[in-house]
Amino acid sequence: TQLMEDSDSSRERYLRNVLREMVTYVIFLITLCILTYGMVGSNMYYYTKVMSQLFLDTPLSPGDTATFRSLSTMSEFWKFTEGPFLNGMYWEVWYNNNSLPENHSMIYYENLLLGVPRLRQVKVRNESCSVHEDLRDEVQDCYNMYTPSNEDSAPFGPMNGTAWMYTEENSLNGSSYWGQVATYGGGGYYQDLARSRDESAGLLRSLKHQLWLDRGTRAVFLDFSVYNGNINLFCIARLVVEFPATGGVVTSWQFQTVRLIRYVSSWDYFVGVCEVAFCLFILYYVVEEALEIRIHRLRYFKSVWNCLDVLIVVLSVSAIIINITRTSVVNNRLKDLLENHSAHPSFEPLAHLQVTFNNMAAVIVLFSWVKLFKFINFNKTMSQLSTTMSRCAKDLIGFAIMFFIIFLAYAQLAYLVFGTQVNDFSTFQACIFTQFRIILGDFEFSEIEEANPVLGPIYFITFVFFIFFILMNMFLAIINDTYSEVKADMSQQRSEMEMTDLIKKGCNK
Amino acid sequence: TQLMEDSDSSRERYLRNVLREMVTYVIFLITLCILTYGMVGSNMYYYTKVMSQLFLDTPLSPGDTATFRSLSTMSEFWKFTEGPFLNGMYWEVWYNNNSLPENHSMIYYENLLLGVPRLRQVKVRNESCSVHEDLRDEVQDCYNMYTPSNEDSAPFGPMNGTAWMYTEENSLNGSSYWGQVATYGGGGYYQDLARSRDESAGLLRSLKHQLWLDRGTRAVFLDFSVYNGNINLFCIARLVVEFPATGGVVTSWQFQTVRLIRYVSSWDYFVGVCEVAFCLFILYYVVEEALEIRIHRLRYFKSVWNCLDVLIVVLSVSAIIINITRTSVVNNRLKDLLENHSAHPSFEPLAHLQVTFNNMAAVIVLFSWVKLFKFINFNKTMSQLSTTMSRCAKDLIGFAIMFFIIFLAYAQLAYLVFGTQVNDFSTFQACIFTQFRIILGDFEFSEIEEANPVLGPIYFITFVFFIFFILMNMFLAIINDTYSEVKADMSQQRSEMEMTDLIKKGCNK
Amino acid sequence: TQLMEDSDSSRERYLRNVLREMVTYVIFLITLCILTYGMVGSNMYYYTKVMSQLFLDTPLSPGDTATFRSLSTMSEFWKFTEGPFLNGMYWEVWYNNNSLPENHSMIYYENLLLGVPRLRQVKVRNESCSVHEDLRDEVQDCYNMYTPSNEDSAPFGPMNGTAWMYTEENSLNGSSYWGQVATYGGGGYYQDLARSRDESAGLLRSLKHQLWLDRGTRAVFLDFSVYNGNINLFCIARLVVEFPATGGVVTSWQFQTVRLIRYVSSWDYFVGVCEVAFCLFILYYVVEEALEIRIHRLRYFKSVWNCLDVLIVVLSVSAIIINITRTSVVNNRLKDLLENHSAHPSFEPLAHLQVTFNNMAAVIVLFSWVKLFKFINFNKTMSQLSTTMSRCAKDLIGFAIMFFIIFLAYAQLAYLVFGTQVNDFSTFQACIFTQFRIILGDFEFSEIEEANPVLGPIYFITFVFFIFFILMNMFLAIINDTYSEVKADMSQQRSEMEMTDLIKKGCNK
Amino acid sequence: TQLMEDSDSSRERYLRNVLREMVTYVIFLITLCILTYGMVGSNMYYYTKVMSQLFLDTPLSPGDTATFRSLSTMSEFWKFTEGPFLNGMYWEVWYNNNSLPENHSMIYYENLLLGVPRLRQVKVRNESCSVHEDLRDEVQDCYNMYTPSNEDSAPFGPMNGTAWMYTEENSLNGSSYWGQVATYGGGGYYQDLARSRDESAGLLRSLKHQLWLDRGTRAVFLDFSVYNGNINLFCIARLVVEFPATGGVVTSWQFQTVRLIRYVSSWDYFVGVCEVAFCLFILYYVVEEALEIRIHRLRYFKSVWNCLDVLIVVLSVSAIIINITRTSVVNNRLKDLLENHSAHPSFEPLAHLQVTFNNMAAVIVLFSWVKLFKFINFNKTMSQLSTTMSRCAKDLIGFAIMFFIIFLAYAQLAYLVFGTQVNDFSTFQACIFTQFRIILGDFEFSEIEEANPVLGPIYFITFVFFIFFILMNMFLAIINDTYSEVKADMSQQRSEMEMTDLIKKGCNK
Ligand SMILES: [Ca+2]
Repeated sequence: TQLMEDSDSSRERYLRNVLREMVTYVIFLITLCILTYGMVGSNMYYYTKVMSQLFLDTPLSPGDTATFRSLSTMSEFWKFTEGPFLNGMYWEVWYNNNSLPENHSMIYYENLLLGVPRLRQVKVRNESCSVHEDLRDEVQDCYNMYTPSNEDSAPFGPMNGTAWMYTEENSLNGSSYWGQVATYGGGGYYQDLARSRDESAGLLRSLKHQLWLDRGTRAVFLDFSVYNGNINLFCIARLVVEFPATGGVVTSWQFQTVRLIRYVSSWDYFVGVCEVAFCLFILYYVVEEALEIRIHRLRYFKSVWNCLDVLIVVLSVSAIIINITRTSVVNNRLKDLLENHSAHPSFEPLAHLQVTFNNMAAVIVLFSWVKLFKFINFNKTMSQLSTTMSRCAKDLIGFAIMFFIIFLAYAQLAYLVFGTQVNDFSTFQACIFTQFRIILGDFEFSEIEEANPVLGPIYFITFVFFIFFILMNMFLAIINDTYSEVKADMSQQRSEMEMTDLIKKGCNK
Repeated sequence: TQLMEDSDSSRERYLRNVLREMVTYVIFLITLCILTYGMVGSNMYYYTKVMSQLFLDTPLSPGDTATFRSLSTMSEFWKFTEGPFLNGMYWEVWYNNNSLPENHSMIYYENLLLGVPRLRQVKVRNESCSVHEDLRDEVQDCYNMYTPSNEDSAPFGPMNGTAWMYTEENSLNGSSYWGQVATYGGGGYYQDLARSRDESAGLLRSLKHQLWLDRGTRAVFLDFSVYNGNINLFCIARLVVEFPATGGVVTSWQFQTVRLIRYVSSWDYFVGVCEVAFCLFILYYVVEEALEIRIHRLRYFKSVWNCLDVLIVVLSVSAIIINITRTSVVNNRLKDLLENHSAHPSFEPLAHLQVTFNNMAAVIVLFSWVKLFKFINFNKTMSQLSTTMSRCAKDLIGFAIMFFIIFLAYAQLAYLVFGTQVNDFSTFQACIFTQFRIILGDFEFSEIEEANPVLGPIYFITFVFFIFFILMNMFLAIINDTYSEVKADMSQQRSEMEMTDLIKKGCNK
Repeated sequence: TQLMEDSDSSRERYLRNVLREMVTYVIFLITLCILTYGMVGSNMYYYTKVMSQLFLDTPLSPGDTATFRSLSTMSEFWKFTEGPFLNGMYWEVWYNNNSLPENHSMIYYENLLLGVPRLRQVKVRNESCSVHEDLRDEVQDCYNMYTPSNEDSAPFGPMNGTAWMYTEENSLNGSSYWGQVATYGGGGYYQDLARSRDESAGLLRSLKHQLWLDRGTRAVFLDFSVYNGNINLFCIARLVVEFPATGGVVTSWQFQTVRLIRYVSSWDYFVGVCEVAFCLFILYYVVEEALEIRIHRLRYFKSVWNCLDVLIVVLSVSAIIINITRTSVVNNRLKDLLENHSAHPSFEPLAHLQVTFNNMAAVIVLFSWVKLFKFINFNKTMSQLSTTMSRCAKDLIGFAIMFFIIFLAYAQLAYLVFGTQVNDFSTFQACIFTQFRIILGDFEFSEIEEANPVLGPIYFITFVFFIFFILMNMFLAIINDTYSEVKADMSQQRSEMEMTDLIKKGCNK
Repeated sequence: TQLMEDSDSSRERYLRNVLREMVTYVIFLITLCILTYGMVGSNMYYYTKVMSQLFLDTPLSPGDTATFRSLSTMSEFWKFTEGPFLNGMYWEVWYNNNSLPENHSMIYYENLLLGVPRLRQVKVRNESCSVHEDLRDEVQDCYNMYTPSNEDSAPFGPMNGTAWMYTEENSLNGSSYWGQVATYGGGGYYQDLARSRDESAGLLRSLKHQLWLDRGTRAVFLDFSVYNGNINLFCIARLVVEFPATGGVVTSWQFQTVRLIRYVSSWDYFVGVCEVAFCLFILYYVVEEALEIRIHRLRYFKSVWNCLDVLIVVLSVSAIIINITRTSVVNNRLKDLLENHSAHPSFEPLAHLQVTFNNMAAVIVLFSWVKLFKFINFNKTMSQLSTTMSRCAKDLIGFAIMFFIIFLAYAQLAYLVFGTQVNDFSTFQACIFTQFRIILGDFEFSEIEEANPVLGPIYFITFVFFIFFILMNMFLAIINDTYSEVKADMSQQRSEMEMTDLIKKGCNK
């Protein structure tokens, strides 16, 4: 970040500085990669996979092809809870029908169910929507789509127990959930199941017979957490069954595999050391950037590299704070959560924190790699390429704006014409993604044609023609032309001392 | 639209005019986007999805994999009507087998069935085709493909009731339907089902036992409409089973989710205000363009931008007229349609009107965005790009003609060679679409190879080689070369005052 | 074809000649398109589809998912013949279980079964292969892959009837069949089934119990023909079950939908007139080319256009001959074939002739469209483009050779590494096709990786890198550079009179 | 390899030398192609296919859809062994239920089972992992992931027989296996099954009832070998069922079809002659390169062509050694392996050797084709293209480094964000492959979006934009520009005598 300033000093001293800065940066990058290396592992993927397979892919009944993924009615939902859900949750016998040695059920014989699963529903009030006067005779009840303001919190049915009385989000230690159809609050009517299969089946049967789900129900959440001691991982699962106001069922799910307990093996301790080093690096960069901002003030933010520096530093500081919070919360609360066997432990906020941390780390890594380009033009070929990139940036952005106007206009057309029929075009964002996918060749033409046999093909052919044939080639024309220019310019420059020369010189000494 | 005329006035005044016109236009565009915003929503997609899932994806019998989508014989059609169709249409009990509180059946417990479903068939006359003399002994009956002139309108079977007597299209308030195999008229032999499941099952059983479907049957239509009060949407459904002259069955369907009743919520009233604003804008543009046409006469149409203006105005006026018609018809007829519970209400024409309106709105939006380009070259980069586009247009069109000659020649070859075997090549249009899809990489090579193991691969490889490798690159060569030229030209021009300069000046004042 | 010669005559006279030639040619092209228009129709596709669906997609037994496509053992083959095959072939009752009005069975109630189906097998001799001496104790019987020389023609089993005695290809009026595993001769052991379901089931049961299929069996053919009077089409079907020497089963099939009987409707007669016109055109071109060849001798073949002319003429003459043969054979033999109800009629050779004719017509059409380019450079833009194409041809061919050396080297690598594991690479040709498909983005990476987890990804990544990133861009570089050159050259030429000028002049007169 | 040195000799003599070298090389290449021609054949693919189909695609029980591919629990594994495995392995009756003529079972009636199948498991020790102190009460047993150091070798269960006592890798003549989850050693607890179905079923039942599989089990291997006398091929099969520490099941398999016995037919002897010729060629090249290295020493390795020469020679020598080893081992051991019918014959090492040989041959062929380019610039067009390639190599490599930094940064982001959820991103290598596949258009956007509905689409769109639109076009710009340069340079050179001239001269003489 002191690159551009000391250009009056000699070229060699300048290069030496850059080299020193670069070596520091590479060490920083290595530290960062070590930190993220252990965050994800193939056993985490397998854990997610086997857990989700167990609940999502088991048929509702033997010989059936319907699974949780394809639920379509309320009665199928009850079939799921009584079949695959109970079977998957309570493993009480070995494959030869002997009962398990330990008393508690182990999913797949390996995974400890923590506490009990929880069934929670959110409802909307009757008469939450306005019916047109002509239809009031026909339509007496009216349950709107879910919004926080429409939410029902009145007791219903037998009006006893948490299953029939509303509980607030705060008491449940819950958070809102972003579903397919709406974003649901964390409160609702809940029923904690039991530690044994028979007891849980009884509870479910009673809910079903007393019509726990009714027309007001908008979503049901099945939450549970398991712990695998072999690989020290938690899997926090949530199965969501949304009952949109249209009728029918939309299912979604979340299997978050996280390592909440750390510093167990010796590798963990090594990573701990790297974490300290990372904090020191960040401290160093915070100080440096602060000094520079103080000197240059607003001019500082004119350079893209400086903005990138600030971004990385800010994200890193946030990530460090999240990580510290996470560690302390886990340490404080894990014991509490584990002690009470017959209650539902809310690991969900912890899992969410951990996933957020992972995502921030991922973004930091990406930007850190990009920052490497600041140092990369250390020989002629490299600088020729990076000059091309930066010189054509303005034209590319100008053209990208034109490109996206056409692109978004097509997306809006597609949304209006196919939006009610085709999943890939069912929201405006989905239209944008789908159009990118069309460019890459991953799409379902038959669905487009079926949805509108006239406008569908016209849309498709003109889109391919304008976007794929014409506009995409403009990107190329811009880059191509700029490259020729840069190459011509470069060949006329007198050759300066380059980074590679400095390194060679250093080696020869 | 007064862009080109006042070039003798000073640059600044000219730019001010353009800026004013542009601001007006942007406001028009925003109004338009607000109008179309509420026309499609994700609940409309979910409504279409759950309704179609219910009828299209339910297996004919438990444990079977055949569904409506894969019907293949007449007896499977009857299986469908007696199984998934009746089950989907009449929901008379809750999931715990209590009967529903209201007396009338609610699909998915949420959707009101409007009136009763209708079953309609169209037939062709016997001996409607000419048999070669050698085969007259063998082939005594001959039922041609469906065309209006071949249609049978004689009573048959028991010859009583609408199921066995022909009814005209006009009496049925119907319209013709564009099926997979042919386009069918709106008349035919129809049977309205009943409000209860048992009664309807009886009607269907009687039709089946008296051979309602016979060799002359060419298509059966299952029509019904449902209304969802929660979200104020109608779903007008039509399941079509075509029996082509070849034997076998081809199924198609239409689930049109439309908002027929408007101005219910406060958002609706806001949109109403925007609609009025839109009409005023259109009025303004009509007057403006009319004046200009009067001045410039035929020269007016030489500019592409003027043609675009006229196109937008004409489409908008049509859309406004359709919308007014729709609103008044719905208001007049909704009560009638809702009153008579045991009759089949024909919502289909209304749904069709609404869908047409949506499509027109979609096209208007697309063209309105494109028109934005008229104003876009307000700085050098932008104008450089749009100049490139317009300058290479002539060459591109010339080349596009050559491209399409080869492209269509390949399509014709593919149609003749694979047309009888492969779905993707079964019509000439399908061949064209499929070839576009091959360019994007979405195709089934195995089907091509299976259909003709010699010509298939030769077709594929030469097509990829000529079209993908050679011809597509010509587009690029043309654009690339023109861009270089334009850039060279631009760099020699003296720089004029630009739109951005004007805006900067305005800000500084 | 007299384009290049008379360059010393005046430009205008030359252009007039070209114009006259071009108009003649366009009329020829229109005639050709009319001829091919009726050859394929969407009802032909539906016929193929419903017939193949009936036999290929019906499950072997209700509730099973195995179909003809997925047969894997001999016992499943017998299950198929006794289930879907008999059910599909003999439709003796209506959907309400009344028997059909006519006495003979009608597939899908519309399609007449012509004669009876035939079951034929080809076998190989025992000890047709050499076993290594070490293994002679273990391996006493040895049935090699099918080749004509290995074919078994000895009677076997009960040694009575055609099912157990070999019949020659000539007596069966058969031809060889190009299967998945080998090419089989037309002779073999055959059993004609009966006109009624019960009788046929009896015949099949007897074959099964006497072990008609044994270790020597290499392929079984199920042949039958149906006629649809409604649309005057024949469908000649062949289901093939190959039993490779490896064990297991490989299935394939052929459903050839052809219009053998012509000149029935008035459209047919109009096409007949066009056929005569086409013959006259061809005669004219034959004479013209013959004259030119006589004048220019071998120099004539130096021009690509002349070669194309000769090719079109030769193909057209062959097609005309085939068509005449076909028509006369059908007229002669149709009656015979139809008379004898209880014999198997061999329509297969006729269907083959018709399909060959269609394919030739397809190729003629393609080349005829290409020939249009000879006339296309009638204005500057067009000639600029076609000049580019012809000028870069030499470089493109040179580069294409280099491209294909690398491409084929990769194909050979893929064949050796994945050939035994992955279907897409199981033959050398398949490797070539698959590599083209990889370029377009249609492939199964998971199969490649599974087959060889080390070389698979290396192959894939280097292939994409070299072929997709590097070599394909060379095509573009060549075209791009040539286009720039041609454009520069053209802009320096003095402008000659162009075709468009001539047309304008003609219009103005 | 003596190309560049003798540039002072006359051009013609030089060209003559090159021509001679080239002709020699082409003969070498032809020999090589003949050698590899017979190594893979379509019957090998069919053999692999039918064998894998039999075990992988047969449903666990009739009417079920679960197969070996989709196993998910230990009890399903036992279902598989008792159902499809035993049925597939022991074919004791014909399709009409007569027992087979020979006494021994023949898979598909054609394939001899060699010896008996073997069931082997590897286990890990209890308490092989460290549990966090807070959880010690809950988690008493802890079975870590498989690593050689965690492997359990203590006897367990009844503690008698090889099934319950550990056997070393050496005694089993085994080798380690690279599974999905881990790499497993060759030792373990094994049970050889019997020659008859009943006996084997008894053995399996006893294992199941005594809990042979327990929480420590990490993988089970099912090994068997079959021989097909008809086509003289062995199929060495291994079905692997991994039980990862997460619970659940991951299956994989290996069906290696190899020709172990050679020199049976006359074609084999012809190939033998070619093998000798190949060895002589290699000897010649070894000597030649050795001489050159002696002369030029390290300078020799500066030329890419020389490095390629050395690579080919080294690989060829290794392949020859492997082949000789293979042949001698097979000859020595085949008799032993075949003699003892009731033991499990370990063909696996032999199959592995053969597959390694095939892969080496494949790589040698690829490089040999590439070497052809050394000779290819024998006329101007060709040399123009190869000059372009070599001149832009430096820039391309420079750019490729920049490209891969961005590419790998994206891969790391994807790994961290999607790694625990999506199979395509579950390892870092998989991320790289998946990103290449995204460029080609083969990906599952829905999975990305589901895994992270915020970062997923952002990742996808920015990736497509930067990599597909921007960076990929840089490759083109570099190639394009270099090609123009080279073409300009070439057109100024005086034309030298070219290879084609020499050939023409030779022909004219
Ligand atoms: Ca693609």
